[in-house]
Amino acid sequence: MSRFPTAWRECVGTGRMELALRRDHQDSLALVQREIGFRHIRGHGLFSDGMGIHRPFVYAGQRHVRHSFTYLDQVVDAYLEQGIRPFLELGFMPSGLASGDQTVFWWGGNVTPPASHTEWADLIGATLRHLISRYGIDEVREWPIEVWNEPNLPQFWQDADADAYHHLYEVSAHAVKDVDASLQVGGPAISPGDDKWLETFAAFVSRHDVPIDFVSRHAYTSGPARHVPFGVHQSLAPASALLDQFALPRKQLAGTPLGGLPVHITEFNSSYRPDNPVHDTAFHAAYLAPVLAGGGDLCDSFAYWTFSDMFEEEGVPTALFHGGFGLLTHRQIKKPIFHLYAFLARLAPEFVSRGPDHLITADDSGRITVLAWAPVDHTDAANSPATHHVLLSVPAPGPALFLLRSSVDDERGNAWSAWREMGRPHSPSPRQVDMLREAAEPARVHRSVQVTDGRVEIEIVLARHEVTLLELTPVVDETPPWWNDSRLVSGEEP
Amino acid sequence: MSRFPTAWRECVGTGRMELALRRDHQDSLALVQREIGFRHIRGHGLFSDGMGIHRPFVYAGQRHVRHSFTYLDQVVDAYLEQGIRPFLELGFMPSGLASGDQTVFWWGGNVTPPASHTEWADLIGATLRHLISRYGIDEVREWPIEVWNEPNLPQFWQDADADAYHHLYEVSAHAVKDVDASLQVGGPAISPGDDKWLETFAAFVSRHDVPIDFVSRHAYTSGPARHVPFGVHQSLAPASALLDQFALPRKQLAGTPLGGLPVHITEFNSSYRPDNPVHDTAFHAAYLAPVLAGGGDLCDSFAYWTFSDMFEEEGVPTALFHGGFGLLTHRQIKKPIFHLYAFLARLAPEFVSRGPDHLITADDSGRITVLAWAPVDHTDAANSPATHHVLLSVPAPGPALFLLRSSVDDERGNAWSAWREMGRPHSPSPRQVDMLREAAEPARVHRSVQVTDGRVEIEIVLARHEVTLLELTPVVDETPPWWNDSRLVSGEEP
Amino acid sequence: MSRFPTAWRECVGTGRMELALRRDHQDSLALVQREIGFRHIRGHGLFSDGMGIHRPFVYAGQRHVRHSFTYLDQVVDAYLEQGIRPFLELGFMPSGLASGDQTVFWWGGNVTPPASHTEWADLIGATLRHLISRYGIDEVREWPIEVWNEPNLPQFWQDADADAYHHLYEVSAHAVKDVDASLQVGGPAISPGDDKWLETFAAFVSRHDVPIDFVSRHAYTSGPARHVPFGVHQSLAPASALLDQFALPRKQLAGTPLGGLPVHITEFNSSYRPDNPVHDTAFHAAYLAPVLAGGGDLCDSFAYWTFSDMFEEEGVPTALFHGGFGLLTHRQIKKPIFHLYAFLARLAPEFVSRGPDHLITADDSGRITVLAWAPVDHTDAANSPATHHVLLSVPAPGPALFLLRSSVDDERGNAWSAWREMGRPHSPSPRQVDMLREAAEPARVHRSVQVTDGRVEIEIVLARHEVTLLELTPVVDETPPWWNDSRLVSGEEP
Amino acid sequence: MSRFPTAWRECVGTGRMELALRRDHQDSLALVQREIGFRHIRGHGLFSDGMGIHRPFVYAGQRHVRHSFTYLDQVVDAYLEQGIRPFLELGFMPSGLASGDQTVFWWGGNVTPPASHTEWADLIGATLRHLISRYGIDEVREWPIEVWNEPNLPQFWQDADADAYHHLYEVSAHAVKDVDASLQVGGPAISPGDDKWLETFAAFVSRHDVPIDFVSRHAYTSGPARHVPFGVHQSLAPASALLDQFALPRKQLAGTPLGGLPVHITEFNSSYRPDNPVHDTAFHAAYLAPVLAGGGDLCDSFAYWTFSDMFEEEGVPTALFHGGFGLLTHRQIKKPIFHLYAFLARLAPEFVSRGPDHLITADDSGRITVLAWAPVDHTDAANSPATHHVLLSVPAPGPALFLLRSSVDDERGNAWSAWREMGRPHSPSPRQVDMLREAAEPARVHRSVQVTDGRVEIEIVLARHEVTLLELTPVVDETPPWWNDSRLVSGEEP
Repeated sequence: MSRFPTAWRECVGTGRMELALRRDHQDSLALVQREIGFRHIRGHGLFSDGMGIHRPFVYAGQRHVRHSFTYLDQVVDAYLEQGIRPFLELGFMPSGLASGDQTVFWWGGNVTPPASHTEWADLIGATLRHLISRYGIDEVREWPIEVWNEPNLPQFWQDADADAYHHLYEVSAHAVKDVDASLQVGGPAISPGDDKWLETFAAFVSRHDVPIDFVSRHAYTSGPARHVPFGVHQSLAPASALLDQFALPRKQLAGTPLGGLPVHITEFNSSYRPDNPVHDTAFHAAYLAPVLAGGGDLCDSFAYWTFSDMFEEEGVPTALFHGGFGLLTHRQIKKPIFHLYAFLARLAPEFVSRGPDHLITADDSGRITVLAWAPVDHTDAANSPATHHVLLSVPAPGPALFLLRSSVDDERGNAWSAWREMGRPHSPSPRQVDMLREAAEPARVHRSVQVTDGRVEIEIVLARHEVTLLELTPVVDETPPWWNDSRLVSGEEP
Repeated sequence: MSRFPTAWRECVGTGRMELALRRDHQDSLALVQREIGFRHIRGHGLFSDGMGIHRPFVYAGQRHVRHSFTYLDQVVDAYLEQGIRPFLELGFMPSGLASGDQTVFWWGGNVTPPASHTEWADLIGATLRHLISRYGIDEVREWPIEVWNEPNLPQFWQDADADAYHHLYEVSAHAVKDVDASLQVGGPAISPGDDKWLETFAAFVSRHDVPIDFVSRHAYTSGPARHVPFGVHQSLAPASALLDQFALPRKQLAGTPLGGLPVHITEFNSSYRPDNPVHDTAFHAAYLAPVLAGGGDLCDSFAYWTFSDMFEEEGVPTALFHGGFGLLTHRQIKKPIFHLYAFLARLAPEFVSRGPDHLITADDSGRITVLAWAPVDHTDAANSPATHHVLLSVPAPGPALFLLRSSVDDERGNAWSAWREMGRPHSPSPRQVDMLREAAEPARVHRSVQVTDGRVEIEIVLARHEVTLLELTPVVDETPPWWNDSRLVSGEEP
Repeated sequence: MSRFPTAWRECVGTGRMELALRRDHQDSLALVQREIGFRHIRGHGLFSDGMGIHRPFVYAGQRHVRHSFTYLDQVVDAYLEQGIRPFLELGFMPSGLASGDQTVFWWGGNVTPPASHTEWADLIGATLRHLISRYGIDEVREWPIEVWNEPNLPQFWQDADADAYHHLYEVSAHAVKDVDASLQVGGPAISPGDDKWLETFAAFVSRHDVPIDFVSRHAYTSGPARHVPFGVHQSLAPASALLDQFALPRKQLAGTPLGGLPVHITEFNSSYRPDNPVHDTAFHAAYLAPVLAGGGDLCDSFAYWTFSDMFEEEGVPTALFHGGFGLLTHRQIKKPIFHLYAFLARLAPEFVSRGPDHLITADDSGRITVLAWAPVDHTDAANSPATHHVLLSVPAPGPALFLLRSSVDDERGNAWSAWREMGRPHSPSPRQVDMLREAAEPARVHRSVQVTDGRVEIEIVLARHEVTLLELTPVVDETPPWWNDSRLVSGEEP
Repeated sequence: MSRFPTAWRECVGTGRMELALRRDHQDSLALVQREIGFRHIRGHGLFSDGMGIHRPFVYAGQRHVRHSFTYLDQVVDAYLEQGIRPFLELGFMPSGLASGDQTVFWWGGNVTPPASHTEWADLIGATLRHLISRYGIDEVREWPIEVWNEPNLPQFWQDADADAYHHLYEVSAHAVKDVDASLQVGGPAISPGDDKWLETFAAFVSRHDVPIDFVSRHAYTSGPARHVPFGVHQSLAPASALLDQFALPRKQLAGTPLGGLPVHITEFNSSYRPDNPVHDTAFHAAYLAPVLAGGGDLCDSFAYWTFSDMFEEEGVPTALFHGGFGLLTHRQIKKPIFHLYAFLARLAPEFVSRGPDHLITADDSGRITVLAWAPVDHTDAANSPATHHVLLSVPAPGPALFLLRSSVDDERGNAWSAWREMGRPHSPSPRQVDMLREAAEPARVHRSVQVTDGRVEIEIVLARHEVTLLELTPVVDETPPWWNDSRLVSGEEP
């Protein structure tokens, strides 16, 4: 048997860095780590003003910069406390170092080049040296360092100026390596839509022999945003389009000097909007299930964007369910996509077999796990098949297995559905939140299944948009010889 | 509307007092209090050696007694920390004060009269004075004080000697009132089977003008124990026999000087054995449901015996499920009977109506709750009806209600059933315990129901041994006018 | 005996409202509530953009406003969870409702009048109705509601326009009372320096019969700020100047229709700057001790501004100790002023006597507490007396008392002093933070003191800037007659 | 530099095994592990009836034994949760397997040989196989397994019968190795006083080629018990007598086949009685300080007997301080001996130098730690020197170090002393417990010390029975150039 790749859990996205100071964010991260367990976490805004790192001042008539880590330490401590490591993104530009006024997002991330590339390199160097002094080089070496975010989009990098980005990358990569040559640096973190950027970037770093340890890009499948108040609607490409995007960097770089580098998909989702209700649905979990099951063949990590609805790119959310990116809403209500991840986290480690609608894994104790999902109509969720059958025959140790099945679909394990039935309360009462938490738990059924000729036959009937996990564990029968069900409410001896 | 009586939550039983020092016991109590919320807790052994209160010693050639509260303080602190108060039971006899060697239970509670009634009265007085000094008279006044346990049984009181008990009661009641006249004292805590004891006792206290603030007895429905290793089987009387026993003290005392006193059923259950597997079943919850729904009409409290399987009267349990009394097993796995109590704790406070298979309550916010249960065959659990229909029409505010239904039956919300399918592991692995916890959660379904002409019509189909809770809350529709389901994965405007 | 007034604990200040979403803020609040226990908490920014409440949008060609409480609920839940209630301040102006661009603070609170007073009244009404629906009118009635902050300063209210404030107050007060007449509304929350504002305001509300339930102002003693990078220095008036300011509203309003209203000092401190190192010193505690001891004679509450260094009016702090307002630094290191408050929280409730350097209280159990403080030179901290003697004779129950003394001064209970010796690390390592926490604990000494003729004589020697708490509790001697110290390491009988 | 040996933290003692089910025990263990961090924990009673492991029953006319692990799993889970591993002691005899009635301790541990050595071997095998199945062989291999306790004393092993013990050891050792040859087994766990037992035992196992992986013995220095009610007094040998006992096994076994085996002192203390008040004193910490500093030269582990006063060999303790073995009392009040251990836990890892009254260690970051202790008069604690001077010159990095000193002596860091002043309350009130907790914290002072010519000179003045820790860490001065103390309360520029 071979290991099922863990690329799906290598990284997850988060809102801008200082949101990690918040309790709701930390409570959500704790829950995600307890039930899923990601390895790294990546978000924007490390160098934005809200983190307070770059602090110019004038003393004795001279400009100086104090580098301050009051919040950065609190953020990283909170991450490590939850067993997750930063995937550092160098950006955006602190206002005291910016060459212009252009910002992105409600919270105003400055996206202009540095006024001084020397001061930018100093900022990187001081930050990394501080982190190494606090956490140790053995720890920081495990944190990939990515230069900027989506420079191929003019809203994220002034004029989407490729030359300016190449210069920024070069300065940044050298600043990183000057601190410690074993630190991992990479880029260009491009968004989909302008795929040649990666080739141009690769040619640049090769030509100039700029340090690079990994390449990164993003993947989304949604069309243009059609706005309604506090939300958008978008069409979607089929989920396989995500796998195509995951695969592209290895294809593009094959045969180039960057050919063997790790490829990180540092953001992916269906819609790139934090206010598209599709994120809250069971459709979304079923749509992404084959991506999570298959993505590890194509890249080294793919990071769901993002783990929590505590996210403010379009302002403070105005309702509990608002189409946010989160696996969890505020107050930790689990969405169907959370369960898809939690199901993956419970898979046995060794690959057995798979198909278009399922994945089977096992371990050497005889434990067998099956993840199965219903096919979806990505153009019209209401048109997805109402039921779908999966028939499996799996080698198994005898004589019997205990089977526990957990299911999420349009009704079950679906707090969004309950919330709709409640009338979509923007600010649910505590009692409503409690009911939503209960409605969010997967439906569970269990039974004993017999092993015949070294195999179990399993028929799975999936409801519309269902994602389901089957856990089968060998039965060791400790029933005593004197047990007799018929005596339960009878004093009589049989 | 009238209030639904809270007698069902006024008190719960526990194993001997020092078990409350244990973490598993405290973890279980915390969970029970969070999801149910009892008012008082009662167990044996306050004065038994394990609590270390009565400590005779010799100094300068003289016998003295030190009264020591090292453990009692820890126990009571743990109770109050969880928002539950002691229901004190004065007994059993410390070995240093006992007049004989007879003991009861694996742990050896001495059941003989005191060698000195003066020293016994001193013990009571010193203990109550200490408790008042530590917790305040306003607090301790809320703790009923019961004299001894089941003195009508020779295994609990030497020779079941009624005169000796009357003397003990008289000495004890005066010792209590000598500390503070406002403390509540009562008895005689008799077991079923010898019901005239109560009348004899009542005549004694009336004739001698002995203080008494409440009367107490126990109620069980099981026949004689038929032993198998580590367990018993017993027949059961119908559940209505419990209600008959609850009602008896008021009937017996009507017209006597004790006629108006509160009546506490300080123990009840089906079987009085801590090793009868019936306690672990959904049958048990369905069997007791009408008792919990109706018992409050007949007495002031009825205390389920007991809240936790951390209980040692027959020795240390040898398997996770072993027929223990607990609402919870060791390690806090919920039994069906736990859920029955948790469902009651979620009922709205005002009585609406009831029937042989259901109870409806409401509150003034428009919230409506329905507890319903399947009928059982108490002579043969396998013969209980496979399905049962309940049709209800309930007045309700319009236009719609959100309905959340939680169900427990032979399969759902039933860790015991999962444990059987696992092969009845005596000491389940941590992973098995996790699966049992998931299997123990009630099945939940939810939907929106329309109100027509000021009423909702509800049809409930119950499975075998099902106990179910329906919670209906008014819908306030906040759906914005622009919402359109068909746009979920579509960019198009409609 | 009379009760020692609790005005000192009725309210405490906090940084802008959404900082309460942060874990460090909540951890600090939990600690403050555990060891001090304030009743209310007040901060700016309820209606500022960071809370996301006022959300205009256009639909079908029309402007609408959604009122959104996603964060407000999280903030208030966090407060109530810690047993502290909001003291609501209505302000600043949401950008979607502002009539101008002027802002205050690093975080940009808009200080211009509303573009529409109707929309402002709607905002108040919707917010209060939501809070009442979530927390109940009995709860919200306990939350004073103050209109705006320091409108007499042009940086806080455009042009410090009194007429515009009067209009705002009138609209706001009616909006509050329209929701529920029992809600408490007040103002004008003026800063010191322009004391006639209160009289003008009082005349206005009296003349126009505008609802008012309390009056409020602020109190500070510092002179103008002399800037250094990341900090300021200021001269201070004597501490008695604070008491003068506390007393002023009752004096000014005596004989007017507002004469009998509660007076709340909704902010006070020495310096009004969040970057003045005096806040971190023992000098500061000794300077404020007589104010806390005496302030309750003069007003109904006086709120220390603020409980935590998690505060961003001048940007993100760049060092652990940075002269912040907090009783606690980030990461919960206690400053001397924290201990002064914690000492007050341990005082017995009944007033016995006081002097210029001490306060004595007692309770009916015989417990006696003494708070004593060293006099300070407010013009030159280095010149404060090096030692100071206090001689007390206090009536006490015999025969002996246990005395526990806790002390904070320039060296003891002083993490700031340890931090200076460490070299003032901006971002201390975890080990340094641990040592600072230990250095922050008060020095404790204890002994037994004899009662002679119904009194104890106590001599207290105070070090420079010392604040000390003496707790004396009656000794009940339980030493057994056989105890003999000399046998500790001796087998011999004496 | 060489490593300072960690033998002092390799193991600690505990009361009988099922006490680990208690919350106070677990709370104490959590505190001990957080501040000290032992590696293993060893106590009596694994096979005693309270653990419920050996459960004979009759079925179909035949005797069978069920091995039950309900409590053992809870105990071991609680240990591992706190990061501490069991040091298993095989004993005492379950009553269902005992050949006689003799018991030891209040709780009645049966000390007779097994009625069937086969059934005893089965008990060992079943228990170890269960543990391996639950925790894995890699884990259980780290748990030393010791056969019985103090078989050379007739109260612990019927007649102190050496031949019977040798037989028991042989059967047990083979039973262990039959489960897995990599498990570590040893003995004979003898008490001091009959030292030849070890030689006889060694000769037996060598002669018969019985498996043995380590040898073990105990060490105590107290003379015979002179009883008072609820306590004893005893004389003590000098502390060096403990080091002599630690050293003896290596001496005795040198040159024999057992010569190279690890030596574990599986119990040590001054007095072997759980009711000798010497355990509660600062004298005790100062007396044992040189033993903890030097013991690691002589053996592989030495286990303080025991970590908590939750211990019942002489019955339930009747007062908070009662001379118990614990590092902590009930309710986690720290004794001076706790602090001695906590000080050791904070020592830097590398040995620098030592003397009769101190130990100096360092690490490669420039951190230096000094443990120093006052000499004691072991025949008369009141006669120990009132002060003691230690002068040290230590190589150190410049230019300055931050010094934090923590002290415990007859007054400081000494809750027992405060408790005496309170009148020795048997059951302190919650407020008294809080004051005792504060009195129990070490006194802390701090300052900056200059490095001159690469060294610091330190003079330590020790009070009577003082144990002190000095922690010196290099100062990195981040004071900004504009800092000026004299401007603290001055607006003026200098």
